[in-house]
Amino acid sequence: MTGTAMIGLGAMGQGMARNIMAAGIPLAGFDLSEGARARFAQEGGSTGEDAAHVVADCDLLLVMVATAAQAEAALFAGVTDALAPGAVVILSSTVAPSEARAIAARLAEQGHTMLDAPVSGGQVGADDGRLTIMASGPQVAFDRADTVLAAISKKVHRLGDEAGLGATYKVVHQLAAGVHLVAAAELMAFGAKAGCDPQTLFDIVSSSAGQSWMMDDRAPRMMTTGATATSTVDIFIKDLGLVVQTARDSGAPVPLAAAAYQMMIGASGMGLGREDDSAVIRAYEALTGHPVHKD
Amino acid sequence: MTGTAMIGLGAMGQGMARNIMAAGIPLAGFDLSEGARARFAQEGGSTGEDAAHVVADCDLLLVMVATAAQAEAALFAGVTDALAPGAVVILSSTVAPSEARAIAARLAEQGHTMLDAPVSGGQVGADDGRLTIMASGPQVAFDRADTVLAAISKKVHRLGDEAGLGATYKVVHQLAAGVHLVAAAELMAFGAKAGCDPQTLFDIVSSSAGQSWMMDDRAPRMMTTGATATSTVDIFIKDLGLVVQTARDSGAPVPLAAAAYQMMIGASGMGLGREDDSAVIRAYEALTGHPVHKD
Repeated sequence: MTGTAMIGLGAMGQGMARNIMAAGIPLAGFDLSEGARARFAQEGGSTGEDAAHVVADCDLLLVMVATAAQAEAALFAGVTDALAPGAVVILSSTVAPSEARAIAARLAEQGHTMLDAPVSGGQVGADDGRLTIMASGPQVAFDRADTVLAAISKKVHRLGDEAGLGATYKVVHQLAAGVHLVAAAELMAFGAKAGCDPQTLFDIVSSSAGQSWMMDDRAPRMMTTGATATSTVDIFIKDLGLVVQTARDSGAPVPLAAAAYQMMIGASGMGLGREDDSAVIRAYEALTGHPVHKD
Repeated sequence: MTGTAMIGLGAMGQGMARNIMAAGIPLAGFDLSEGARARFAQEGGSTGEDAAHVVADCDLLLVMVATAAQAEAALFAGVTDALAPGAVVILSSTVAPSEARAIAARLAEQGHTMLDAPVSGGQVGADDGRLTIMASGPQVAFDRADTVLAAISKKVHRLGDEAGLGATYKVVHQLAAGVHLVAAAELMAFGAKAGCDPQTLFDIVSSSAGQSWMMDDRAPRMMTTGATATSTVDIFIKDLGLVVQTARDSGAPVPLAAAAYQMMIGASGMGLGREDDSAVIRAYEALTGHPVHKD
């Protein structure tokens, strides 16, 4: 039997699922959230209340949950037994390289093959089918996954044959994204306290040597309150935690990432863990005693 | 009498001087370096061995030296007495806001007016006449400086009437530039140690959410050795020192800038202070025990 399935239909997964179906690929999908399943069904996907039943006999499964623990829970409570023999599992969650290798090994014991394929581009990239994919795994996995990857991405980087390489590039990439996000907050809070107009400061920095993609994207949200969460503070605590731990395991000190991690933890400690990750500005505002936002 | 003069014909100043003269403005110039003066004379400027004599009777003076101490030494040992009465002094060095205010006050005592006008864009921007200028000062100073600023910049941000505002925006901007530069080194060193191919890692990050102007510009130099210095490690130690001190004076904690500052100090401690600022990668390589560069 053949068929394509997906587990994880949240902020990232829903856009990816939509683009897979738009490419003409029938898709079976599961999420623990009943609301996510209902939305997926409305958009033409087939779903149900039991994950193993939903994915039964599929030979390609895309996993887009938030953490390695969620991925293991999703896969190893019946789902992998229900898949077609020798299926390919695309793991697109951001996980530690050691976790990617462990999940791949456990899948191999059951005769399945894993593509270690985390993504970058956020909810906008997922919605637009323009994610960047950092992928490693055997040729057979790339061959089977090819049309699905093409449907969701602008670029697939092929990084080698072994699970863990995709995860390594993604975790290292998150160092830059996380440091630049927190640096944007540090700059905006310092500038506002020192007497700069926040919008003028942003206009100058974003058109000069201080520019970054994260500042361009997040600083406008920092100048308001109540931004819609596309990715949360707690998700970035998870990601920067992976950066710090993977760097430690590698023997590489990361003082900037470690400092950024602490400020994100502070934002969560203020009760903002479920807010948009641009809310890290609130932690800096708490320390400067001076608001950046005007509303 | 009227006339335009410039003090500081180094890495930044020589390109600025060239663009001023290319705009049809005759220019008198001085630098402590005999080589810099000779180059300036070859390009059509008038110069000499005594700064006060060179700038005599000019009513516009552009100062592009490295530090506030150098600016004070250049101005207040005879130069300001030699200028035409009521001259305008454009201070384009990166200095602390408090230093900009102090120099402006001292100039005012002598009947001169200061434009606080630091620049961003580096040696390339100076050479191309495409600097970003962050300027504050009275209208009369902007009026007199207008044609010179237009000759060297792509954009002049007018930030208010008072000295210190231009310097404040510039120092806050340097937080982003400095943190992004050191973050690029931290990422490349961590990635190389964790098994990533440096060029592939750079290609992925620079086309994803981890992109920054500084990484785009400096990471390629980090993958070689012996990059030509366009701006040095020691210059960035000065700039990040201004960030940390100005933030402290403002009551704004800057943990990322403080960490970046320490890594730059480490690079200088290794004997690399006069090297290109991308040499901060060598400090990370020393700590990971693993080279990023291939040559």
